[in-house]
Amino acid sequence: MADDQTGPLADVTPFPDTLDARLREQFTFLVEVDALKAVLRRSPLVAVERRENDAEHSWHLAMMVLILAEYSDEPIDTGHTVQLVLVHDLVEIYAGDTPLYDSDAGADQEEREVAAAERLFALLPEDQARWVRALWDEFEARRTPEARFAKAMDRLQPLLLNWMARGGTWRTPGVTAEDVRARKAVIGDASTPLWRAGRQLIDEGEARGWSRSGETTEGPSA
Amino acid sequence: MADDQTGPLADVTPFPDTLDARLREQFTFLVEVDALKAVLRRSPLVAVERRENDAEHSWHLAMMVLILAEYSDEPIDTGHTVQLVLVHDLVEIYAGDTPLYDSDAGADQEEREVAAAERLFALLPEDQARWVRALWDEFEARRTPEARFAKAMDRLQPLLLNWMARGGTWRTPGVTAEDVRARKAVIGDASTPLWRAGRQLIDEGEARGWSRSGETTEGPSA
Repeated sequence: MADDQTGPLADVTPFPDTLDARLREQFTFLVEVDALKAVLRRSPLVAVERRENDAEHSWHLAMMVLILAEYSDEPIDTGHTVQLVLVHDLVEIYAGDTPLYDSDAGADQEEREVAAAERLFALLPEDQARWVRALWDEFEARRTPEARFAKAMDRLQPLLLNWMARGGTWRTPGVTAEDVRARKAVIGDASTPLWRAGRQLIDEGEARGWSRSGETTEGPSA
Repeated sequence: MADDQTGPLADVTPFPDTLDARLREQFTFLVEVDALKAVLRRSPLVAVERRENDAEHSWHLAMMVLILAEYSDEPIDTGHTVQLVLVHDLVEIYAGDTPLYDSDAGADQEEREVAAAERLFALLPEDQARWVRALWDEFEARRTPEARFAKAMDRLQPLLLNWMARGGTWRTPGVTAEDVRARKAVIGDASTPLWRAGRQLIDEGEARGWSRSGETTEGPSA
């Protein structure tokens, strides 16, 4: 995307001068986040043969919060949890998607994402910039029940897509079923029944040969 | 999509028998709605050259609710308004998108969408099917401040995309700036400042030749 640090997308067709100043900042941000639709993830869609993008993923997580909130081990504010999933990947507009099973890309992930957050949220009026940043920080820190449940949805959704694809990213070279279980275990920090279901899908997928059996590996194995 | 009335997408890779019955219904619904990512709209994206799909659009509306809720003329429950926009287009999975400036396609739209709602929401456990149907009905009826604001976002979002594209669907043959103003006027039922801004964009677009000046037309004009 705009990694070359050019101006915001809205500069291509500047809004009229007649527009209220605060609204202009908000519209500029809302146009900029259109770029989330162009950030591709590794997960394969169910309905059509292509990879998912971050905007679709974020919408899908929000739907999952609405339908699955009843399984949270702790009481959660559903509306707040939805806010967390709606904004959780925005930083990837500048920082890009970091695949779950790519430990190299994960090395400087935090640094890249913090820089992206500072740049992106600064487009908003200051009060809203602080508020959206606080939502993203809350999601990342996972210290509230809402953030833990949001994170669980973020891990459960591609698990459903991989199940439907009979493997999907579980087939990434060097990745074992044990790696999948380790990466998905955070679902259990939010919901005992959803992590039970998640393990059932991972176990059954392994039994069917959709993932590689064996111990956790560091890199591609033979 | 599944217009041939075959079974749900989840039938392609059925969930294991070990899965809890209620959760199986919920997962089946959550896999089915993946199809919203394959329903194309007419609106052009800003960030890349392709048309938007319904899942991306729904996520964008949810972001707009978070950022623009302060402009509602009446007090609104933001979380509830977000729920309305998240589910508002689900019926298009079976009924398809009905373009705003296509009056022929609009003729049997309601009938098709009600049939789609009955089929899609029936995948959910009964209590959730009733709840999601009530959300969709509320959005369609526009009798609550939340539904009016949700509808305003649904009309304002493509207006922003069309502005960025210097015309976009405003250039649809037979459509005039006066048609655009008429179709977008519902924004004013929810928010005076946002409709003022919307009119500024439409007026300025017309002045720049991005839409056709003239009276409302019934069909393609010369």
